[in-house]
Amino acid sequence: MHFELTRDFLDKLKESIASQDDKIVRELIKELHPADIAEVFDELTIDEAHYVYSKLGKEDAADVIVELEEDVREQFLEHLSSKEIASVFIDNMDSDDAADVIGELPEEKQEEVLSHVSDVEQAGDIVDLLSYDEDTAGGLMATELISVNENWTVSKCMEEIRKQAEDVDDIFFVYVVDDSEMLKGTLPLKKLLIASSDTHIKDICDTDIIMVKTDTKSEEVANIMDKYDLVALPVVDSIGRLKGRITIDDVVDVIKEEAEKDYQMISGISSDVEASDNVFQLTRARVPWLLIGLFGGTLSARVLGNFGDEISLYPAMAFFIPMITATGGNVGIQSSSIIVQGLANKTLGLETTMKKLLKELSVAIVTGLFLGLLAFIYNFLTSDSYALTFSVSTALFSVIIFSSLFGTFVPLALNKIKIDPALATGPFITTTNDVTGLFIYFWIGQIFFSYFS
Amino acid sequence: MHFELTRDFLDKLKESIASQDDKIVRELIKELHPADIAEVFDELTIDEAHYVYSKLGKEDAADVIVELEEDVREQFLEHLSSKEIASVFIDNMDSDDAADVIGELPEEKQEEVLSHVSDVEQAGDIVDLLSYDEDTAGGLMATELISVNENWTVSKCMEEIRKQAEDVDDIFFVYVVDDSEMLKGTLPLKKLLIASSDTHIKDICDTDIIMVKTDTKSEEVANIMDKYDLVALPVVDSIGRLKGRITIDDVVDVIKEEAEKDYQMISGISSDVEASDNVFQLTRARVPWLLIGLFGGTLSARVLGNFGDEISLYPAMAFFIPMITATGGNVGIQSSSIIVQGLANKTLGLETTMKKLLKELSVAIVTGLFLGLLAFIYNFLTSDSYALTFSVSTALFSVIIFSSLFGTFVPLALNKIKIDPALATGPFITTTNDVTGLFIYFWIGQIFFSYFS
Repeated sequence: MHFELTRDFLDKLKESIASQDDKIVRELIKELHPADIAEVFDELTIDEAHYVYSKLGKEDAADVIVELEEDVREQFLEHLSSKEIASVFIDNMDSDDAADVIGELPEEKQEEVLSHVSDVEQAGDIVDLLSYDEDTAGGLMATELISVNENWTVSKCMEEIRKQAEDVDDIFFVYVVDDSEMLKGTLPLKKLLIASSDTHIKDICDTDIIMVKTDTKSEEVANIMDKYDLVALPVVDSIGRLKGRITIDDVVDVIKEEAEKDYQMISGISSDVEASDNVFQLTRARVPWLLIGLFGGTLSARVLGNFGDEISLYPAMAFFIPMITATGGNVGIQSSSIIVQGLANKTLGLETTMKKLLKELSVAIVTGLFLGLLAFIYNFLTSDSYALTFSVSTALFSVIIFSSLFGTFVPLALNKIKIDPALATGPFITTTNDVTGLFIYFWIGQIFFSYFS
Repeated sequence: MHFELTRDFLDKLKESIASQDDKIVRELIKELHPADIAEVFDELTIDEAHYVYSKLGKEDAADVIVELEEDVREQFLEHLSSKEIASVFIDNMDSDDAADVIGELPEEKQEEVLSHVSDVEQAGDIVDLLSYDEDTAGGLMATELISVNENWTVSKCMEEIRKQAEDVDDIFFVYVVDDSEMLKGTLPLKKLLIASSDTHIKDICDTDIIMVKTDTKSEEVANIMDKYDLVALPVVDSIGRLKGRITIDDVVDVIKEEAEKDYQMISGISSDVEASDNVFQLTRARVPWLLIGLFGGTLSARVLGNFGDEISLYPAMAFFIPMITATGGNVGIQSSSIIVQGLANKTLGLETTMKKLLKELSVAIVTGLFLGLLAFIYNFLTSDSYALTFSVSTALFSVIIFSSLFGTFVPLALNKIKIDPALATGPFITTTNDVTGLFIYFWIGQIFFSYFS
């Protein structure tokens, strides 16, 4: 049904590359989809990959390049001349993929490649696409699409579609424009097939179209396509002229990237890394947040330093430091992640910030009373110090209230001032809650210990 | 372009519902997409929603129901009779949506609704779909599709498509089957448009098809559609007969749900909640992981309890408890999340577990040396106790090594025994690392303090 990369397959392939056994290499990759070959490339050395690559047809070669991971592609293309890139890829790639691949090249090489593109119109399309910010609809869209004039008849339209269809891989919709290229409607293929041949397009096309502008943010494009269950979305310029279309497979990548970004943020990883990256890349992505944690640790040490005498007198106070910081951290992460996810999914609704904080406060009070009570019972049974028993449970309650409200408020505030709210998850929130939590705990402890002694 | 729900709009709508002003209500919702109306329903009371609902045409009504959030839909349908559900929805819904909606009803009501479906074939389709596990391809697929026989000609095929197209919303592909309904190939509409009318389907269809079986897991369906950039995917039974097709919009939901599940797991939330859920639901989703954290806190207290004398003598040891636990927690989350994400994206490659642990060890050594050195310098400058200075930095180094390896190993091990590796992220890993980290810290501390004194 579909390919599963195995160690056996890889060993066999590497062996036949080493012995330059063309026949077996071709045999092995013959049945593979370009996406599978790209996966195989990940596991080969650059030289091995180039060897396999040289056995591919032009169209497959282009598809494989598109499917490669960005860093693998970068390395791979370094070893290809601009002329090769232009001749092999560009003619066999959709404009959006071509623009993405060329956009990743060093500026000098970009121009070189474009100068080798034989089809001037296509080179122009790519230059146009390169001018859009890659995080916008313009950066996502492809220019290959089928458009027909609203004044044509169905039969004229069919004829035109047959002509245009050669350049377009998948036809999902036919776009209907007027004489000045303004988008007027969409035409599901189904209607075209059912309609009689002398009907005017104008009379059967859907004019109630969902479209985006070239400068609409990718994230919003993804939200719109997801919400309205769209497979393709037309893109227009600021005055409404049809410029391209975005297909759902490109948006799936955007959705996955957004989710990954949030996930990495909450796990304290600062840039896009994968388990298969090298030690240096992995370390670089992880150290920044650890430094923030370390800095938080020194702040905590300072806070505790002020209570050195108490700790010396009542070392049992120190035993519950981890419970207080862990609970504060966990509650803070929970609260902030619920908000971050709500903002990403647009499921927060129309409640005001005040209302959200009040609701969070209710959750915090219930949770705090429950956990505080458990801690109270535990210490009541295991410790003979009333001061400790009261301090730990009261502090636990207070820390839960503080961490909930802080974890809810910060991402909402960041979002309001247009900073990625996901910044408020992960080590940042845990570190702040650690420091504040300890302060609350020892401050409460001081009161109870002086009261009970 | 598309609708943005505002407080103003909502107030106006609620007002006209209260005054039963039909005309304005109709006016307000006239231009809205069903997905927008579903969003509006989220903000209305059940009675208000029913009022708006009664003003919708049958087809829109069905679409709105499909788009509602599951819990809103459940409440909403309670107030509709089985007959209404059957007559209004079923005829206007795709089979997969109909099966999803009916599957959510109480068993008794399911049978009642099905008994009211007039079209026996359709009722049969829905019953068939209901029999599949909802997390499999069978549970995702719709039975509406266009299939043609491989022996037909293009013109016969076009004729048939016109007939079948009435039941199918979007046509992306035409599926080609043989006389016993076995899937033989797919036919892009484009080829059909370009081919001459007496060509046999057999000669122009793509026989190199990617398909899944009805029992393929949703997660794998999503991976396949994403990897091969598919918009629609045919589903066959165990002997290869065409049973349905899955479209990418259904899979986008699967992808988002998977990402959300992992995100909630790492943030310590145990079930699917949203910020708009009520206080009880929110609390219930959050308390379980907090209890694990609290339990971890008592274990930490026990560990520290064994070192009460040391803490009393050298309270400065206690000052660095938060630094040790925070770093252990952060490192553990980073390591485990990289593995969890790698497993989800299938980007881990073919490295063995041993190799992964060795790589992680290298990252941990570099990171540990760096952070350990920083902590050493800090304490060297701010404290006059060599014992403390050496203890903190050595412990920090050791904790980073332990947490990295533990965070890497646990999700890999869980995955091997078929348990969701995401369980190893979030509070579980932090709690374990807290307890172990403290033990390491105080054990090392004991050695250094006895050495230096």
